[in-house]
Amino acid sequence: MLVLGIDPGTAICGYGFVEAAQGSRLIPHEYGAILTSPKARMQDRLMKLYDELDELIKKYKPDAMGVEQLFFNRNVTTAIPVGQARGIVLLAAAKNNIELVERTPLQIKQSVTGYGKATKEQVIYMVTKLLHLPEPPKPDDTADALAAAICTLHCLDSIRWRNG
Amino acid sequence: MLVLGIDPGTAICGYGFVEAAQGSRLIPHEYGAILTSPKARMQDRLMKLYDELDELIKKYKPDAMGVEQLFFNRNVTTAIPVGQARGIVLLAAAKNNIELVERTPLQIKQSVTGYGKATKEQVIYMVTKLLHLPEPPKPDDTADALAAAICTLHCLDSIRWRNG
Repeated sequence: MLVLGIDPGTAICGYGFVEAAQGSRLIPHEYGAILTSPKARMQDRLMKLYDELDELIKKYKPDAMGVEQLFFNRNVTTAIPVGQARGIVLLAAAKNNIELVERTPLQIKQSVTGYGKATKEQVIYMVTKLLHLPEPPKPDDTADALAAAICTLHCLDSIRWRNG
Repeated sequence: MLVLGIDPGTAICGYGFVEAAQGSRLIPHEYGAILTSPKARMQDRLMKLYDELDELIKKYKPDAMGVEQLFFNRNVTTAIPVGQARGIVLLAAAKNNIELVERTPLQIKQSVTGYGKATKEQVIYMVTKLLHLPEPPKPDDTADALAAAICTLHCLDSIRWRNG
């Protein structure tokens, strides 16, 4: 099972493909960030985000996509742009008919570090450990995307376990 | 010149086409609202919104699109869903290569009622008057979309006037 984790953003959108192999071993595939220029028009930045995500999805054909669930954003000034990027991510999932798993930041941190209020550094450390990465993924948005992917794999695994 | 005004929302997305004819006469064309069910999955609601908007744009081929500019939402709990719907609207504009005009709520109210802090009722009243509608447009989101279209026509008109 291959999962695409996403950390939505307009300037930086982190992404990471993680595969769950036999014996619950986690294998990282392509990961990184889609960047858009603050000098470009917002609609063009969102289109670049959509097109690059769509290309990644069509290339790797993930079984599911994991995205942070945001009820509201602590930072009200970024809530609208983050929401806009998140809308693009959800549309790309729907258009490609990919199962979407949404989990809260607390659930994602819990799943990766065992502690829902873990710091950013702890998340980066554990993502690097769990995926046996040569070095911590950069930028931080990439680590968050990989964390979302790992959490999604854990969620889907436990759903399957419950359903026999 | 034909303009499509949009009031972005996931449950209700208002839209309205307004044409500026000779002598700055305003002619309303199709207006209404795209509705999505709260029972459906968010990604499917956003896809419905995208597909219906895309269909309207391809049908009427507007010269420009007018959307409220939101720096942040007073209501933090709706900022993410409103942002998500707004992202979809901007993507539809970009994919169809339509000029996008963004104005603040204050500028739109100013343009339609002459007063930037006008009430919702004043906006509905003036939109109905200016477009000679048989009755106030329903739901309110449709009136807001028509107001955005009127403001966009005023903006484009004054830009053209300035540019000779």
